[in-house]
Amino acid sequence: MKLLLGSRNPGKLREICEILREVPSLELLTWEEVAFSAVEETADSFLENAQLKARRICEETGLPVLAEDSGLEVEALGGRPGVRSARFAHEGATDEENIRLLLRMLEGADDRDRRARFRAVAVVRFPDGKELVGEGELRGRIAREPRGHSGFGYDPVFIPEGFDRTLAELGPAIKNEISHRRRALEQIKRQLLELLEKG
Amino acid sequence: MKLLLGSRNPGKLREICEILREVPSLELLTWEEVAFSAVEETADSFLENAQLKARRICEETGLPVLAEDSGLEVEALGGRPGVRSARFAHEGATDEENIRLLLRMLEGADDRDRRARFRAVAVVRFPDGKELVGEGELRGRIAREPRGHSGFGYDPVFIPEGFDRTLAELGPAIKNEISHRRRALEQIKRQLLELLEKG
Repeated sequence: MKLLLGSRNPGKLREICEILREVPSLELLTWEEVAFSAVEETADSFLENAQLKARRICEETGLPVLAEDSGLEVEALGGRPGVRSARFAHEGATDEENIRLLLRMLEGADDRDRRARFRAVAVVRFPDGKELVGEGELRGRIAREPRGHSGFGYDPVFIPEGFDRTLAELGPAIKNEISHRRRALEQIKRQLLELLEKG
Repeated sequence: MKLLLGSRNPGKLREICEILREVPSLELLTWEEVAFSAVEETADSFLENAQLKARRICEETGLPVLAEDSGLEVEALGGRPGVRSARFAHEGATDEENIRLLLRMLEGADDRDRRARFRAVAVVRFPDGKELVGEGELRGRIAREPRGHSGFGYDPVFIPEGFDRTLAELGPAIKNEISHRRRALEQIKRQLLELLEKG
């Protein structure tokens, strides 16, 4: 079965491929093989944004599409940056700009107020209207300053529960084991395997 | 279209009916009209539990089924009681027992450590395998002691953001406006309307 990945973010694409390549008879396609238009993430929940992207791109290409939306929720900020994680500082912001703004907003905040979680929702949409949904989260806290160079987004300032290093210090092997995206994709993987078994 | 509500909780059924009765040509059925077996909520996420229930009951009855799972996540407790909200004190616990345990665990905790959110995930499963998913959350904090008599579950100790009274004091009209379940069901409603329009 062909599955088009509805993301252009190279960091996300790498993580998705590493997890879903374990599904036999699944042929992963990216925007490099099948072009699709950009979809604006206008909704205010991860689920609705993922559904929006998967539905639009599926309609446009006629292929089964996997889309995900994910982000960071800081409890002391009332769940921000949330769905605006990638454009927290401003539209088109770099990871560095977003991180700088986040650290400034948490200046003086103690560990309790630095509690945060990553959330991911993944949706697979099929041309016949069928949908699969998976979700995952990773709890942790926001570090005082960026550390480490692996990963992307807020990884340099996110310390997962049970660790004392940031995701960017822990590296891809550990991140892919514990990440919110992994959990969401594992749920998708199980549902895909079920579907493929049924033929 | 017939839609079987996959819950036996009278509080939830009332809330669901109040929201979904606005959908024209939707005939809501409950366990009193169509019997189904109890489904154990064995998964560790709201989404997976809601999917589990909707799929099993749909398989058993051959009808489109709406199931939801919801609960309370307290940040300082690492997200507990979470999927165990209804059986936090023990299997088959009353609302009072669960609330008593929660207040004891938060004894001495200040407002920051009393931050919490209600989350709800609703799933509609159709006999052809199609699924709709909606989710919602309501942020707030845990009160020092129970107040008010409306609602159910943790409503007497949950103070929504922007209010200074508990959900149980605010009453059903306000709760149904702002609740996590309402948001999840609104998303389901929109998708049902789309489906029904297409015929």
